[in-house]
Order: sequence, then C-alpha cells, then structure tokens
Amino acid sequence: MPQLSIDCVIFSYHEGKLKVLVLKILHHELRCLPSGFIFKDEDIDQAALRNLKERTGLEELFLQQFHTFGKAKRYFPDQVQSIVDSLGIGPEHAQWFFQRFVTVGYYSLVRLEEVEPKVDLFTDGFDWVDVAALPPLIMDHPEMILKAKTFLKGALHTQPVALQLLPPSFTLPELQRLYEIILDRSIDRRNFRKKILATKTLIPLDQQRKTAGHRAPNLYQFDKEVYLNSLGEKSKLGF
Amino acid sequence: MPQLSIDCVIFSYHEGKLKVLVLKILHHELRCLPSGFIFKDEDIDQAALRNLKERTGLEELFLQQFHTFGKAKRYFPDQVQSIVDSLGIGPEHAQWFFQRFVTVGYYSLVRLEEVEPKVDLFTDGFDWVDVAALPPLIMDHPEMILKAKTFLKGALHTQPVALQLLPPSFTLPELQRLYEIILDRSIDRRNFRKKILATKTLIPLDQQRKTAGHRAPNLYQFDKEVYLNSLGEKSKLGF
Repeated sequence: MPQLSIDCVIFSYHEGKLKVLVLKILHHELRCLPSGFIFKDEDIDQAALRNLKERTGLEELFLQQFHTFGKAKRYFPDQVQSIVDSLGIGPEHAQWFFQRFVTVGYYSLVRLEEVEPKVDLFTDGFDWVDVAALPPLIMDHPEMILKAKTFLKGALHTQPVALQLLPPSFTLPELQRLYEIILDRSIDRRNFRKKILATKTLIPLDQQRKTAGHRAPNLYQFDKEVYLNSLGEKSKLGF
Repeated sequence: MPQLSIDCVIFSYHEGKLKVLVLKILHHELRCLPSGFIFKDEDIDQAALRNLKERTGLEELFLQQFHTFGKAKRYFPDQVQSIVDSLGIGPEHAQWFFQRFVTVGYYSLVRLEEVEPKVDLFTDGFDWVDVAALPPLIMDHPEMILKAKTFLKGALHTQPVALQLLPPSFTLPELQRLYEIILDRSIDRRNFRKKILATKTLIPLDQQRKTAGHRAPNLYQFDKEVYLNSLGEKSKLGF
C-alpha cells in the first residue's frame, strides 16, 4: 500500500532515563524510527510486527497502536532526496517516499538488557537515545516519539508499564524516577513511598542496592498478580 | 488517497442511553457511520471534519482520533456489491470500495438536542441508535463503535465527557447512570453521591426534576472551572 506506513517507537528505561530505539541511516547523518510499508493483504498489526523484525531483528514484542500521523506535509523533499540518494534507492521505489504517506504509530516497552537489535541493509547501527534529548531525526519522528510518550502517561495506571520497563528488582527511588519521567513532574518522596506501598503491589526483598556513601536502599520486586489486578480502568475517584 | 478512509463515531446521551449517529444507506437495508475518503493534499484531521460535514451537515465538533482499523479483510464483497448497486456507483468509483482500505476512526461527543444532522445524496435519513443495541451496520462499523466506547472509559476522567454529554442541568442519578454506562458496571448509589460531591465539581441548583411519585431529585450543574481543572492525567494513586 504505497501511501500508508508503520513506525515503531520502542521504549526502554536505563540509568534513570526513558530511552527510545533509533536507527542510523546508512551513509547519512540523520536517524529514524524503525519503519516500513504494509503489504496489500496484510493486517496493519501484522505489518508492524513484520517491519520491526525486518528492520531490527526484534520479535515477539507487545506492539500497541497509539496514533496515526496524517498531516499532508510530513517531510521536506530535500531531506527525502538526500536519503534516497544515500541509500541508492532507484526511482521505482523512491516514488513511494516522494508522494504523501500516512503512518500508523505503534509503541512497545522493553528491558534494554533483554533485547539485542540487529541492523538491516539500510542501517548503519542503532542507538538508545534519551527521549528528553533526541538527536536529529527524519520527518516527523520527534513528534511521534513525544506523542507516544504522552500515551505512556495514560498507560501508567492501566497497563504494566513499570513492570515492563524496570529490571526484576529495583529501589523505590528508581521506581519514583520512572513515574516522574513518564508523568513529567516531580513527586514528593515521602508521599510516593507511602502511596506506592499502600498499593500492596511491591514485595520488599532481603537485599539492598550497593551504593557509594548513603545508606543502601532496599530492593523490591512487583507482586505480579497484585500489580496486574491493580491495573484497569477504575476511575481515580475510586468508584 | 484510494486506500485510506475516515469514519466518525458521534456519541450522544439521551434518556439514559449512550447513542451513536448512524446513516441509513439509500435504497439499502444496512446503516453506516458517517464516512469518507481523504484528499491527496489534506491533513487527515481536516478530512475527518470535512467528511462529517459533507455526510451529516455537522460542523465545529471536537473530533478526536481514537484508533485506526487496518485488518486486511474488513468487508464482505457481496455486501459491498449490493451497496454499490443500490447507490448506483459507477465502476470508476466502485473500485475504491473493492480494494482493501484502512480507516482512521474519530469520535465526538454532542448533546443530541443541540445538533441537527442533515442527509446527503447517499443517505435516506439518520438515527441515534443505542450503543447497547446496534442495528445491522456495514463492514466493521459495530467494532469501531465499541472500540470508541472503550476510549470513553479512559477519557471519562481526563476529558470533559460528562459536561459534553449531559444537559446543562441534571440530577445525580442521571450523572451516575452516565458513569455506569461508560464504565460498564453498576456503582453503589451512596458511594457515588459521596465521592462525586467530594470532587466539588457540582453546583446544586435551587430546582428539582419533576418526577411522578418519588421525592423530586435535586438538579445540579457543573462548576465548569473546577471540573475542567479536575481533569488531567493525575494518577489514581493521587501523586
């Protein structure tokens, strides 16, 4: 389908930062999200999984559609020309990029240490970049990443976002930092501690994080069953 | 753009039921959502507004994109054939319906008594039908309506859903009924009363709803400023 594509925003959380997987375009200074087109007889959800696998080797991820980006002007012709030239794309395929196309955005959450992206023929490597400090990206890819991040805000209490992003054991400050990044605001430490423990979703471990200096913070893990049951569409009014 | 369309799910709330606007297809027994295609150089958000206006006369609505429907098989060829025949669509345009197309779903909330839909050339009239008892609709339109309804659940506490759907003054049982329909579960009456009044979003009016029999329930209106400020992405943990 020439005028419809897929883009994948793959988030991870590492060293206190929300990161996103971007590909270095071969022989070009710009980067991009893992993207691709849709076969004529392929469900778009399948196309998202296939494109992600073809572009990065990643598979069996839980990809969720979050938004379709359909501005008439999503790119600069000069930029597209330079990429088509860099990749040596012939005119037959290049026309796909020069006519307007709409893209369906999907996102997924992974633990950075559990995935091993591989490059494809159009790619020179990949990076996990800080969502708060994105490098130059093609087209409207920065807008897509920021839009996907706003979806995480809504998903934080309805989907197992923290479970999917954090390592199996973590400290309360690490969990708080993740909440703060996703909600885009700081949270009072004592208030966070009190409320998060009241949810009964955390199991304290008999282990501490080894840190230089201060008292070593205790490690926790999620009580998966309680955590998953705590999610859902209940209102914040608590009805 | 031949392989991409728009569908609009227009909700209203009337007589204790969540309703959706459907069009009667001319000379055909099936109904459909207001739909249409996208011009080559038109933003999809603009296409949604334009199509809704062309198909129903409705304009200046707040249309929100909620999901893109992209299964490879979204229709039955016989059904499409019968509609194309009924409408007398020539082969040049009919081919748009016989090849696979993906559709971007938008929804909006209106007060039924404040809008006056008009029919277009392909339409024999319109109905506000109960979302819980949909009539036969073409393609995957029932799935779209149900998907849009699940979005209302999430929007109930982040967007002014109740303000947009209810009349300017309403009783607590009427407000509770709206919450119950959108959340798909019953709520304890006293609990609802206590919690909704605690939000300070309601102003009691010095008027009662005239009802036969029972004690006349008091009417309320939203304190718009407080209500709008109460919305947002705050977690139900209340951080």
